[in-house]
Order: sequence, then C-alpha cells, then structure tokens
Amino acid sequence: MGEFDLIARYFKRPAKRSPLGVGDDCALLAPAPGMQLAVSSDMLVEGRHFLSTVDPLRLGHKALAVNLSDLAACGAKPLAFTLALALPSVDEAWLEGFSRGLLALADAHECELVGGDTTRGPLNICITVFGEVPTGQALLRSGAKPGDDIWVSGTLGDARMALEMFRGKLTLPPGLAQLARDRMEMPTPRVALGLALRGIATAALDLSDGLAGDLRHVLEASGVGATLDADAAAACMAASRHSEFAALALSADARRALVLSGGDDYELAFCAPTSARARVEQAGHATGTAVTRIGSIDVQPGLRWVDANGQALTQQQFLSFDHFG
Amino acid sequence: MGEFDLIARYFKRPAKRSPLGVGDDCALLAPAPGMQLAVSSDMLVEGRHFLSTVDPLRLGHKALAVNLSDLAACGAKPLAFTLALALPSVDEAWLEGFSRGLLALADAHECELVGGDTTRGPLNICITVFGEVPTGQALLRSGAKPGDDIWVSGTLGDARMALEMFRGKLTLPPGLAQLARDRMEMPTPRVALGLALRGIATAALDLSDGLAGDLRHVLEASGVGATLDADAAAACMAASRHSEFAALALSADARRALVLSGGDDYELAFCAPTSARARVEQAGHATGTAVTRIGSIDVQPGLRWVDANGQALTQQQFLSFDHFG
Repeated sequence: MGEFDLIARYFKRPAKRSPLGVGDDCALLAPAPGMQLAVSSDMLVEGRHFLSTVDPLRLGHKALAVNLSDLAACGAKPLAFTLALALPSVDEAWLEGFSRGLLALADAHECELVGGDTTRGPLNICITVFGEVPTGQALLRSGAKPGDDIWVSGTLGDARMALEMFRGKLTLPPGLAQLARDRMEMPTPRVALGLALRGIATAALDLSDGLAGDLRHVLEASGVGATLDADAAAACMAASRHSEFAALALSADARRALVLSGGDDYELAFCAPTSARARVEQAGHATGTAVTRIGSIDVQPGLRWVDANGQALTQQQFLSFDHFG
Repeated sequence: MGEFDLIARYFKRPAKRSPLGVGDDCALLAPAPGMQLAVSSDMLVEGRHFLSTVDPLRLGHKALAVNLSDLAACGAKPLAFTLALALPSVDEAWLEGFSRGLLALADAHECELVGGDTTRGPLNICITVFGEVPTGQALLRSGAKPGDDIWVSGTLGDARMALEMFRGKLTLPPGLAQLARDRMEMPTPRVALGLALRGIATAALDLSDGLAGDLRHVLEASGVGATLDADAAAACMAASRHSEFAALALSADARRALVLSGGDDYELAFCAPTSARARVEQAGHATGTAVTRIGSIDVQPGLRWVDANGQALTQQQFLSFDHFG
C-alpha cells in the first residue's frame, strides 16, 4: 500500500468544521472572532512512551489524549489536530486499530484530523493539536498567587504503578493490574474541567512527568513557592480505594513516590484563590471530575512537602521523570 | 543535560509576535481578523529524508524549509512553528548547529518557534508550521481549469542528481557535486512567490516527491488532465547550465528521469490562465524566482508527456517517489 492509499484508507474523512482538511499542502483553520488559537505538539516514541506490546487502539487513544490534556491545561476547546506518523512497515491490522482509537477520542471531543504526514521509519507518533480560547482567558502557568490553594484533578500514581509492574518491580493482583494498566494506556484528558476552570483557576498545567517535578514549572513561572500535603496527594491513587490494595502492603513512602514522581497521569494541577473553593468543587461536580486540594502557594520560593500530620518530610526523593535525566 | 535545559539553551527565545511562546502547556497564536490559518506538518527521518552525515546546520535549515514550502504552495505568510525532536543522545555540537540552521531560516521568514517537544529516541524531526492567508485566497490543488498554463518555479532534478551520487550511481565533477548537494541539503522555500501568486494562480502545490507524481494530485483534485513538455521541464535543471555538465554526457532520458521523478525539489508547480502570463512573469521577477512554463491543462484526464518537438513520449517511467512504494 502506498503512502497516499494509507492516508485515504485510514485517516481521510470529509472536513466537517475546518474550511479545508486532509489532502492539500496545508489544512486551513478559521478560529472564531475574538479567539486565540492554543497549539501543542507531543511526540511519542516506542519504548519510551509506550511498550511495543500495547494494543494499537489504546495507543491511538493515548497519542491524542496526551495532546488534548495540554489544551485542557490551557482551558482551550479542541478544534483540530495533525498527525505525523513514522512506521517501520505498513501493518494494516495495526493501522486499523490505531486509527480507530485515535478517531474515537477525536470524535468524542469534536476534534478534527486535518492533515499530517506519513513516512517509513522507527515507530514515532507526533500530534499537533489546536484549540481555541477567548483572548486573554487561557490558563497559564504564570498566574499562581501566594495564598492560592493547589488542586489536582482525578487520580494520580496509578500509571506509574503499571510501569513498575511492567518493569517487574511490583507484582499486582489481577484487578489492580488492570486498573493500573488502564490508567497508563487510556488516560482521560480533562478537557471539560479545563473549560470550566476558565475565570476561576489562576494557573494550571497538565501532569505528564510527575506531580513534584511538574509543579515546579508553575512555581518558577509564577515566582512563588508551595507547601504540599504528600499524603493528601497519595490518597488520590485510584488503586488505594481498590479492595486488593491493602494486601499489597505498600509503605507510605512507596505510595508517595508513585504519586509524587509518577508521571503519565494526564491530570490537571491548578491553583485558585481560597475564596473560589465552592466554585472549584462545582466545576469538578459539573464535569464529573474529582478535584482534591493538596496544598497552598507560599511567598517563599521552593517546594515543601508535609505529611498528613503537617510534619515536614525530609525525604526529598520525589524526582520528576525527565526524558534526558 | 535535562530536557528542560536543552530547550532553554538551544530553542527558547522570547516570543516576539505570538501572545505566548515556548514554555507553557500550549503556545497561543492570534491570527489577524479576516485571516485563515494554514497548517502543515512534515516528519523527517534519518536515512529516509537525510543522511546521517549531513551537516546539522543544513538539516536544521531543511527541516523548516520543507514545511515553509507547504505554506508557499498555499500562498500563506509564515507566522510560527512547533518543533518535536527525538534524539538518540544529547549531542551539544549537533544541537548547536541544528538550532542555528533552523532559527536562521525562521528569522529570515519571521516565523517564530512557539513550542514543541523533545524526547529520546531514534532521530526524528517533526515540524508543524502555521501561516496566515486572507479567507478564501489560499492557493489550493483543486482550482486548475482546462486551458490553464502549467508553471514551475526555480530549478528541478538537481537534488535527485545528488541522491544518485550518494547512491554511487552517478559520478559528478566537484562543481556539479557541490551544486547538487546544495540543492538537496539547502532547498529554498518559495514563500515570496507563493504570496505573489495569490489571485493569479488557479492551483498550486509544492514539489517534494517528483514533478510527475506530484502533478497528479493537482489533476485529481481539479478533475482535469494535462500535457507536459518533458524537455522544457528537463531544461530547469540548474546543473544543465553548469560548465561541467556537457562532459557528463547524460542521455535525454536520464535528464528527464532526474527532473520528472526527482523529488526533494521544494519548488512550486502551479496553474494560471494564459491571460495571466505577464502577471506570472512579473510575480517571478518581483520575487527573484525563475518561472518556467512547461505545459497546459486539458479536459481529458491523465498526464501526457511530449518532447521538445511535440512528439509523445512512450516511455512512461517517470514514477513518483512514494514513501511506501
């Protein structure tokens, strides 16, 4: 199958909202008047971001989900995306599954595939996603203010638990194994929550490299520090509410490590004034997304961790997953 | 060096025109009122699109040039781009050269790096470029009309000559070797010509996979056919005007093959009414770009080649370079 047949068979669909979609030198996008365009690119590499054994349908989902998560963190409404794909060979079963997972999530968010590229090469998936946000209303990393609460959405640390399982460092009973694997392979981009937080959150970002490392980007961009309750964060593991969890007998430190230096969560961390607590909880409720308060912004630079009793945690080993670390 | 240091050192510069550049979850773009955004993605893979021995400065240039060429083919003015980069290791000399070549071309076109991604993996460069074009004025592939002239910009076939040299199939004297290599490694995106052709050209596309194959996309999108003078096209080789060329003693067929199934030209092919010949030549002159008339659009579907004497060429071996061929 040639390159053009491949595109036509698996990825080309009539443009619904964009003026011009797949099949010309460029796609054309027309943001509505008064809107800025939010743009983000993520590249996924086999062995680094996913295992070669992953179900291609799940990989298609995840490849778009991690990009939609960036839009969510900006409070942008998804519009369209491009897909550049390097494939070692043309495997039709793989392409069928991949495109099905990808386009199902795209449809769920009314986010249209408008163009891209295919080539032969080591498996590599690069998606660039476009969303729109009213001018001046994007959620940035730079707006956190001393006294703000720090919140996280959804559940944290479960994807990292799956990674430790695949690395052979953790043996999980079947129910937990499935839960962890689902969180790693099928993240849920918090698009609706991001939209609901416009005008409420002072700063936001998406969690891809682990809470402890990612939060530093907000602190640096905002010129502030923070105190965080590591155990409030650790309680956000979905696994911790599973009937099989107690038998694992994980130490408090192990739980903290999974959650704080986890990675692959694709949840939002965001800041909001204490006066907005009811509005944040309402935004979570309205969008069906759990929101958990885990700390507050300080004037003093740096990130301080405390346990559930407010005692400082001396063990500062919650390092971020850094791709070139 | 960590991922974030790498971005800061080589790629982060203050946003000049975009509301928000590198360093948040998304970049923000604000197209001017009445403008559509033209978007294109290209992925370059080592061994497929460039040799491992290429000067990284030239690779940086080419990676952006092939994307700017897509904007040129739409008549769009470059605005911004994202860069996703998979690197097998952090090689500072390589990054220094690559970023210098990339950003020099970006500056020349006032096209701003606004975001992207870096990861470890087999070398892969994925750029998504954004340009703006007044609503309804984009040059598309679908507007060619019977009777239109077919034009090409610049020079054709020289990059393919370099490829044949690197493959060991052609031995070139030093002057020609340098010329061919320069055309392969440092293509010139015809951005100014694309802008000048707005309102004149009825259809356009950029030549990346070879004239004969690429033109079929215009014919199919426009529902027309074409008759082309293979020797008028072959005369577009820059090499053919070099003092060392005659000694090569290439056959007419070899010259035609280099030009017609060449690839990597990054020139524009476009159509325009015969009444617009003076305006096309003026657009070429004003932008310092050679323009050559090589044929005309027919009602009858398909692509017919003739030689300089108008004799049909029976040898139809000018196949396009198809990445999955």
